Amino acid sequence: MYTKALLTDLYQLTMMQGLYFEGRHEQSCVFDRYYRTNPFDGGYTVVAGLEHLIDYVHHIHFSDDDLAYLKSTGIFQDVFLEYLKGVSFTGDIYAMPEGTVAFPQEVLLRVHAKKDEALLLETCMSMIMNHESLIATKARRVRTVAGHDALMEFGLRRAQGKSAGIYGARSAMIGGFNGTSNVLAGALFDIPILGTMAHSWVMSFTSELEAFRAYARQYPNNLILLADTYNTLKQGVPDAITIFKEMKEAGTLPTAYGIRLDSGDLAYLSKEAHKMFSAAGFGDAVIAASNDLDENLISELKAQGCAINSWGVGTHLITAKDSPSLGGVFKLVGQYDGDLFVPKIKMSDNAEKISNPGMKNVLRIYDKKSGKMKADVIILEGEVIDPEKDLYLSSDKAPWRSRVLRGGSFTVRKMLQPIFLQGELVYKKPALREIMAYADEQVDTLWPEYLRLVNPEEMWVQRSPKLSALREKILKEESAHFF
Amino acid sequence: MYTKALLTDLYQLTMMQGLYFEGRHEQSCVFDRYYRTNPFDGGYTVVAGLEHLIDYVHHIHFSDDDLAYLKSTGIFQDVFLEYLKGVSFTGDIYAMPEGTVAFPQEVLLRVHAKKDEALLLETCMSMIMNHESLIATKARRVRTVAGHDALMEFGLRRAQGKSAGIYGARSAMIGGFNGTSNVLAGALFDIPILGTMAHSWVMSFTSELEAFRAYARQYPNNLILLADTYNTLKQGVPDAITIFKEMKEAGTLPTAYGIRLDSGDLAYLSKEAHKMFSAAGFGDAVIAASNDLDENLISELKAQGCAINSWGVGTHLITAKDSPSLGGVFKLVGQYDGDLFVPKIKMSDNAEKISNPGMKNVLRIYDKKSGKMKADVIILEGEVIDPEKDLYLSSDKAPWRSRVLRGGSFTVRKMLQPIFLQGELVYKKPALREIMAYADEQVDTLWPEYLRLVNPEEMWVQRSPKLSALREKILKEESAHFF
Repeated sequence: MYTKALLTDLYQLTMMQGLYFEGRHEQSCVFDRYYRTNPFDGGYTVVAGLEHLIDYVHHIHFSDDDLAYLKSTGIFQDVFLEYLKGVSFTGDIYAMPEGTVAFPQEVLLRVHAKKDEALLLETCMSMIMNHESLIATKARRVRTVAGHDALMEFGLRRAQGKSAGIYGARSAMIGGFNGTSNVLAGALFDIPILGTMAHSWVMSFTSELEAFRAYARQYPNNLILLADTYNTLKQGVPDAITIFKEMKEAGTLPTAYGIRLDSGDLAYLSKEAHKMFSAAGFGDAVIAASNDLDENLISELKAQGCAINSWGVGTHLITAKDSPSLGGVFKLVGQYDGDLFVPKIKMSDNAEKISNPGMKNVLRIYDKKSGKMKADVIILEGEVIDPEKDLYLSSDKAPWRSRVLRGGSFTVRKMLQPIFLQGELVYKKPALREIMAYADEQVDTLWPEYLRLVNPEEMWVQRSPKLSALREKILKEESAHFF
Repeated sequence: MYTKALLTDLYQLTMMQGLYFEGRHEQSCVFDRYYRTNPFDGGYTVVAGLEHLIDYVHHIHFSDDDLAYLKSTGIFQDVFLEYLKGVSFTGDIYAMPEGTVAFPQEVLLRVHAKKDEALLLETCMSMIMNHESLIATKARRVRTVAGHDALMEFGLRRAQGKSAGIYGARSAMIGGFNGTSNVLAGALFDIPILGTMAHSWVMSFTSELEAFRAYARQYPNNLILLADTYNTLKQGVPDAITIFKEMKEAGTLPTAYGIRLDSGDLAYLSKEAHKMFSAAGFGDAVIAASNDLDENLISELKAQGCAINSWGVGTHLITAKDSPSLGGVFKLVGQYDGDLFVPKIKMSDNAEKISNPGMKNVLRIYDKKSGKMKADVIILEGEVIDPEKDLYLSSDKAPWRSRVLRGGSFTVRKMLQPIFLQGELVYKKPALREIMAYADEQVDTLWPEYLRLVNPEEMWVQRSPKLSALREKILKEESAHFF
């Protein structure tokens, strides 16, 4: 049986072997994970994937089958494969907890490890956190426009594979969804599972009315009838009203009951259906909708006064359709030369690809009065910001916007928490419902301007003066010999 | 341990239970899988996912843990759970083989089964085939512009989860790629694995030159040096030339050697690098490129005369970035009323969502002389097209384009093959390399006009006269009582 240790790019393993034979594989180093732009042209990213990552790191090892396969490629030497057999993760990982809102250039996760162990983790770690943060962020965008409506994740059949479906459903919950149609995700992560009927149910009976009646017989308490199989307003809604009446007379109509629309003009159909329900005395019937929904369409439908109060979001959420990857990267930011820590920078012909050097953390500044977030400061680990002293916010990009936060008006929170120390898991994994509550709190610290779908306000993120100075110094040294 | 049987939408299981108690779960029915539009605004789709699907169908069953979980939800009754325990797939599946090119509205796969077994498979079947066909199609688009250049799949770190990475790599091969960086995919599917070094390798040494020299020492036969860590033209390329010279002098320069560019203007840098290599006597050095490549960018770079002959394609391929879902659906097209087969249609307020009724197959028409594909005809199963008689191609959408293919000028091929019959696997799964050869053949039957990236010619797909008549008849019946 192959293990997930093989779920990596070949070059990680060839570099590990190369460093091994060059005697550099055990050099201690520090890697940062960060991203450069918010997905969806949005104002933030919701961090997710840590629980999955912890499981991955905790269990990483090479099985005999893994090693036999690697040997069969002809690329690896026996002595190195023997060494691989004993490899596991023995370093430190610091990370922002799941549900944290984060911004471009910030350290989301920091790894201290022997170089070969860091290489071993890079690919899969990046994949897990890129994917799950992306979906959590998309879900949060949907939640910000849906208000208190019900939100259901319905995307499994369009997901990019099994893991995309399962971890996508979990990430949707971190983004503020109420449940999923994905039964396995429900079982694995204790997520509420939801769903009623498909068109094939309706088509299995001699008439829609018979199909609805059979459904009501079987599931009197989960009565959301799919109303668009034949003709929504001419047949689906009248048939639903017939059923609701029958149940009302029998005293079996549940508190929550209604219909789902899966095609056509959802604004128009929902308003007409609501009118028809109201006229028949069923004005509180739920109108659920699905069919290629995303945050933009939901926002439009609401602007048009639709009567929908429950949304099934599938394809657009589970694939993050308009921005289906988060470009999170994992970069060497320093390494030890004996006991001396030497900060490193990744130069690039693309200016935005140049990294921040050194061992860093993020300090988050909150306004004391409103509780809202004011700024993030990327610091060199160990630097402190004294909340009793004035804090100068200066911007490289827009110096005229520089300003001072008065001492006593703000609080400071350190964002990276220890997860693994010397290979030991020191972090108590929160339950999903705790992560969801924390994620809600996090979003509540943002003014609506930062949550806006289009042209959101950009969060103030700056380097500490010490970090800026270090970066300038190394940039100058690295560039010196080209001029 | 939960099984993949839980990897489904809840409503499939609630419908199964409902049908069970309504005594309708064993009704024989026929479902079609098809899609409505080509992804990427392209002219075709490459079908993939059948091998994965076969494994899924073959092993589907509910474990005790699955049943315990379902019981814990309070939705399912013991007698039904007891019944589920014995459920497996006992029906027939017909499908187009992997690597087949297909077009909108065509039956890609047809399931004959008891209704509850069809419901059981739907979600996961759709997910597997939507995902893998999507990536194979994207890869084929890249292959059509890359000509005979090397194409490497590099996307794991941006994949939407583990399965997306693994099955995406396999699908890329069906689309015509040469290998993957994904080691686990290599191990599972016998795919060539490829890769050299990352920036962190270069930064692990005191200088780029030292890093290159160490790499040449460790991997003298896999010598692609990453040239953009500091400054591509001022340092990376000169350092590479130094190494190539040292190896040439020592007689250790391999046949294939070169550099990889991962940032900056790839057209300009590759042309300049090629000039520098040529001047130093290394005009045959490979210039590989990566960095957010897709078929459009590769096509542009080639139009600009870039000197790149090896491409690493990551994010855009593995996520199908510009079109990250294939809207394949699974619809009831008929069911047995006793011994009588009753074709069914799915009406919809959206005209394009109305399905083709009945038990169908696809006949593909090839021009005898050129071997190129002329048209597909969706038929009712059992209909034949006699290649010795004239074939009338008529179009609903564009009647003025109707035309006649002369008898004797064409050949006919039936596209759906039996995969499972009465639950038994009757299909011999081809090796990946056979699938790849078949996929190449399939693409060769399309004129370049159908393969074009932008505004491709639309393949001629029509219903047989019998199918058209059946569809019209049912449509009329279904609509009659609304007017």
